[in-house]
Amino acid sequence: MAADPRFHAAAGPLPLSRLAEVAGLAVPEGAGDRLFSGVGTLDAAGPDEVSFLDSRRWISSLKQTRAGAVVLAVEHAAAVPEGCVALISPAPVLSFARIASVLHPPEAPGGARHPTAVVGEGAQIGEGCEIGAYAVIEEGVVLGPRCIVGPHAHIGRNCVFGADCRILSHVTATHCLAGDRVTLNPGCRVGSEGFGFATGPRGEHVTVPQLGRVILEDGVEVGANSCIDRGSGNDTVIGPGTRLDNLVMLGHNVRTGRGCVIVAQAGISGSTTLGDFAVVAAQAGLTGHLTIGAKARIGAQAGVMADVPAGMDVLGSPAQPVRDAMRGYAALRKLGQAKAAAAAEKKTSD
Amino acid sequence: MAADPRFHAAAGPLPLSRLAEVAGLAVPEGAGDRLFSGVGTLDAAGPDEVSFLDSRRWISSLKQTRAGAVVLAVEHAAAVPEGCVALISPAPVLSFARIASVLHPPEAPGGARHPTAVVGEGAQIGEGCEIGAYAVIEEGVVLGPRCIVGPHAHIGRNCVFGADCRILSHVTATHCLAGDRVTLNPGCRVGSEGFGFATGPRGEHVTVPQLGRVILEDGVEVGANSCIDRGSGNDTVIGPGTRLDNLVMLGHNVRTGRGCVIVAQAGISGSTTLGDFAVVAAQAGLTGHLTIGAKARIGAQAGVMADVPAGMDVLGSPAQPVRDAMRGYAALRKLGQAKAAAAAEKKTSD
Amino acid sequence: MAADPRFHAAAGPLPLSRLAEVAGLAVPEGAGDRLFSGVGTLDAAGPDEVSFLDSRRWISSLKQTRAGAVVLAVEHAAAVPEGCVALISPAPVLSFARIASVLHPPEAPGGARHPTAVVGEGAQIGEGCEIGAYAVIEEGVVLGPRCIVGPHAHIGRNCVFGADCRILSHVTATHCLAGDRVTLNPGCRVGSEGFGFATGPRGEHVTVPQLGRVILEDGVEVGANSCIDRGSGNDTVIGPGTRLDNLVMLGHNVRTGRGCVIVAQAGISGSTTLGDFAVVAAQAGLTGHLTIGAKARIGAQAGVMADVPAGMDVLGSPAQPVRDAMRGYAALRKLGQAKAAAAAEKKTSD
Repeated sequence: MAADPRFHAAAGPLPLSRLAEVAGLAVPEGAGDRLFSGVGTLDAAGPDEVSFLDSRRWISSLKQTRAGAVVLAVEHAAAVPEGCVALISPAPVLSFARIASVLHPPEAPGGARHPTAVVGEGAQIGEGCEIGAYAVIEEGVVLGPRCIVGPHAHIGRNCVFGADCRILSHVTATHCLAGDRVTLNPGCRVGSEGFGFATGPRGEHVTVPQLGRVILEDGVEVGANSCIDRGSGNDTVIGPGTRLDNLVMLGHNVRTGRGCVIVAQAGISGSTTLGDFAVVAAQAGLTGHLTIGAKARIGAQAGVMADVPAGMDVLGSPAQPVRDAMRGYAALRKLGQAKAAAAAEKKTSD
Repeated sequence: MAADPRFHAAAGPLPLSRLAEVAGLAVPEGAGDRLFSGVGTLDAAGPDEVSFLDSRRWISSLKQTRAGAVVLAVEHAAAVPEGCVALISPAPVLSFARIASVLHPPEAPGGARHPTAVVGEGAQIGEGCEIGAYAVIEEGVVLGPRCIVGPHAHIGRNCVFGADCRILSHVTATHCLAGDRVTLNPGCRVGSEGFGFATGPRGEHVTVPQLGRVILEDGVEVGANSCIDRGSGNDTVIGPGTRLDNLVMLGHNVRTGRGCVIVAQAGISGSTTLGDFAVVAAQAGLTGHLTIGAKARIGAQAGVMADVPAGMDVLGSPAQPVRDAMRGYAALRKLGQAKAAAAAEKKTSD
Repeated sequence: MAADPRFHAAAGPLPLSRLAEVAGLAVPEGAGDRLFSGVGTLDAAGPDEVSFLDSRRWISSLKQTRAGAVVLAVEHAAAVPEGCVALISPAPVLSFARIASVLHPPEAPGGARHPTAVVGEGAQIGEGCEIGAYAVIEEGVVLGPRCIVGPHAHIGRNCVFGADCRILSHVTATHCLAGDRVTLNPGCRVGSEGFGFATGPRGEHVTVPQLGRVILEDGVEVGANSCIDRGSGNDTVIGPGTRLDNLVMLGHNVRTGRGCVIVAQAGISGSTTLGDFAVVAAQAGLTGHLTIGAKARIGAQAGVMADVPAGMDVLGSPAQPVRDAMRGYAALRKLGQAKAAAAAEKKTSD
């Protein structure tokens, strides 16, 4: 099944030689001139489409694929069916991503400003920016060249975005300084007031003014309906290339390193720091003021209440090193079974 | 307490005979002409209001209700107080829903297009549609008859919606094909870019173009601020009559069957499939590439990392069959108590 | 580091005597005339800024601070470095909040109505309200004096807000009656249709009309992208001074008492009641129809399926009293270790 042209641009047909070149891959002799128009999964791709294999799990799909070419690791090349070109890659998904981006290039900014867009005094809109209907860009905002601002996006006073940013439909961004190539997906909230208050003698909650900012370094991507609160005094800082999935919550003063990955519905409380390339899986929660080391991985639904050393994988709530958590689960299962056996025996003997 | 007329339309007063007819229920002799204006809970309903009982739990409220009529199962009829009409139903809440919908009909589309709505070139707006202020409907969109598009809703290029859909305030819908009677509640995001990327040798994340769509079958309802990512290559497909609560997250390529129920803050990772009438309770999480059988039920906060057979109920994180999870909890509680007893003894003997 | 003037207003410099007065604190002799311009953390504040210490944890930062004054408890006063004024407070964060609010006053409503704001027939806008670009205020809405309505905010028909409310960017509020000083942060949804339906014989889900409202008492604050469904028959009621963090979900008919705190990504199912000053920590989930007593505290990620007495702290999923939960965790850890030891021994003896 080809990508639906109503929704996805297509640049093809393009010769395989060009696609392979983009991904830095070798083309088998004689295949370089074959033309390709799109990409698809092994099950759905046709003869003019490129597919990929990223795991032995799909090897039976590979054997039956109608795809014209498949990107895959050398050890799976023997399973490629006749007539299908094998593009050998040490990193098949990465190579596939590069090929797919050439066949289906991401939407470029159109360069137009919708007449309904409200742009405040002193705002500087870079060359080639596209501004959608009913966008509100307040006074003093600076947008670098080639940004896309979606319909209804709201960029608050004096925010700064670098080049090639995408601030999509219904985003709110305030108190925010962003680098280049930052993507804010629909409905995310960047720079909202953090959850900071003190409680008085009669139980009344008094807001502590939240006086920091949000710094989004180059290449940061924030998922739909996610929230990043601004710092309370220091800043909230999202490191270069860090990616947040949808419905993620980052509290005030959180800092992430380079290339972190935070999966859907995870939440990180105030002032916790993630080292470079740390991963927080879906629905995990981290309390505040923690230090998570570089390349640490927090499992799905984990509840982290203590620092995690660099490179460690943790799981469970409360979180433990993965091996310990697994042993605990096994022990618990065994206990449950023992209980069941005892119950069964009791029933028999009654 | 009657429904506040500032917020809810009322069609009454209507005779009980008409209401009973709508729900397919019998009216006790002589009660058919009694007039009713609204509905209410057992505690709050008055003599001109209809109430219902769905559980023995509320039987004491039933005995004291001032409601003029109560829909309930035959086994509770004896507890209905004097002067209150018992409407016997095998499915009291279902019957009540039908009666309430007649007394308080849902808002019908007004048929007007607010002058500020932006409608793109070639968009086809069906007869009787209501388009709210500042709605943005991009080029090529097709809306069936009698749709309601709320204020600030954003419908992306070439999306298709069938008849009687409601795309409410602040919704973003892109890359989306929807059937009839689809409801998108405020702030939900349908069709956003999925969380798909490959990671290069220096830790850089490279987006894999997300080239699929979202298919919403007839009668799908999506809760406020929920997110459904579009497919990465294949489509994300939500089956007929499936209902999502608020703040739910569905990753790319998720497929649900007919009539599934996904409760608030639950999340389903990419490419997982739910069979017909499967239920995912609140805050549960499912990893990717799983197959959940028809009528399986995933408990609240469960963490599902393996396929679940049809009809099975699971609980816990990691999820187990309910009985096993319950035994595990009991065993753990006992262990905790043993530990407490040992600690107490030690303290005594010190 | 001073608060960035691009994003945060500053009222200083102000004499310390004035700041101390606001917080009800004594100023050491001779220090009253020193001028202060802002606030900052111990590590970042400079000589013209006020900082605070709320925990012994940061005592080493205190010893090296360059702050001109520090609010702290009497027992930490000895660690204040020379040249820094100690402002002794029994509640340092509370006092600091008051001082910070004077130096950096919250944005006051500008009093202007953006020409693009749509205000429906019969709506009453109080004196001094500020209405942002593309805000939609439907017919019959009542706003008290000095409210701020952000860009793209949508206030549905006949909603009522008291004085000094903030309904920020991209909010949807419908079926809602609010008191004074209510804050709705960006993207929250108040008054959406609850998740109420009955299921028919062929598995079809039939909506039960949701006929209640949302009542927000004085001083309620709702976080970004949070959702509060309207009542199904009775109302959803959020008690005075209650604060919700971001991405929180409250189902229909939930009631909270005075001053409750509900942290990010927590969810409370329909008809559950929280007593005064109850706290629900991040990612916790409560099933429906529960009664949580006053000052009870629900731990992060807890799963609450039964009533919780007043003043009790619970933890875990399923939730138990904290001490029991902790014992269970310890027992489980021990079991895991025993299993590990047995495995190690077996390996050695092999």
